[in-house]
Amino acid sequence: MARSGDDKSFVLWFTGLSGAGKTTLADKVYDCIARNGWRVEKLDGDMVRSVFPSTGFSKEDRDAHIKRVGFLASLLEKHGVIVIASFISPYRETRQFVRDRCRNLIEVYVSASLEECERRDPKGLYRKARAGEIKNFTGIDDTYEIPLTPELVVDTENHTVKESVSTILNYLKRHVGEGLVLD
Amino acid sequence: MARSGDDKSFVLWFTGLSGAGKTTLADKVYDCIARNGWRVEKLDGDMVRSVFPSTGFSKEDRDAHIKRVGFLASLLEKHGVIVIASFISPYRETRQFVRDRCRNLIEVYVSASLEECERRDPKGLYRKARAGEIKNFTGIDDTYEIPLTPELVVDTENHTVKESVSTILNYLKRHVGEGLVLD
Repeated sequence: MARSGDDKSFVLWFTGLSGAGKTTLADKVYDCIARNGWRVEKLDGDMVRSVFPSTGFSKEDRDAHIKRVGFLASLLEKHGVIVIASFISPYRETRQFVRDRCRNLIEVYVSASLEECERRDPKGLYRKARAGEIKNFTGIDDTYEIPLTPELVVDTENHTVKESVSTILNYLKRHVGEGLVLD
Repeated sequence: MARSGDDKSFVLWFTGLSGAGKTTLADKVYDCIARNGWRVEKLDGDMVRSVFPSTGFSKEDRDAHIKRVGFLASLLEKHGVIVIASFISPYRETRQFVRDRCRNLIEVYVSASLEECERRDPKGLYRKARAGEIKNFTGIDDTYEIPLTPELVVDTENHTVKESVSTILNYLKRHVGEGLVLD
């Protein structure tokens, strides 16, 4: 068991189009934080769907799903666990729901144009969406509401992964405070 | 933030009929653990529904709901947080799903006869279920599968709240190990 305390934790929430690079960045930031011995949990769609395979893909299902993940993140944060969450999370209202529940939410907008994401198409999902095999796919037949005031924007179209990771880690060092030692 | 560690946490899962006394016992055990400075979270239906008011009451909805709570409990436990969960959780298969995900699940069967629970009826739910105002109510028109091998049984029909709390705290002191100091 762990002793309770007032230590400040945070939720690092990556939002952006499929293929923008959310999970790539989240994984690297996670590794850096975990390597330094902090309690940290990674949440993403693949992980949550592996536990709950029946989670639907309708707009309502996906929205409820993100809200539940946000609640889960807030409870972990409350108990001193750093949370790295990576979800398209296309709607502002839903991201606001998550923000309202977290003490210290750092929203990272992972920015890349639809054209670039579709060119990358790492999971072949855009191709399927264009073929009509996937419905309600963000960017194709569902909207992505760009964050208006995210804590951080990383542009993966014009910067390397290494540069984007540095941007995020530097932000954390500056804003989370001296408690967070990262080498 | 908190440093990660190998400390052993646990999930104390109260199951039993509505009115059996799960929440009363869970609250008292929670208070004792929190008072001693341990990281501890309390999960129950009222708390979860306050965040997700649209959670349905059908058999499928309730089942999915318990599984999600179990997953949430397992993540908190993994990060050293003690979890006190209080849910009717009537089905063995669902409780097994939760058990499979937790490292150290302590299932507490809060035992009281249906007659006694219905006599107590603290929230007036049995009356409504008998009147047909609530469907799929455990014990009335839905089944409760008694745990076959719970870690602990507390009989609230023949023992006082104080006695039942003592039984649980003594079990924790014996089984969770010397790490857990409770005064």
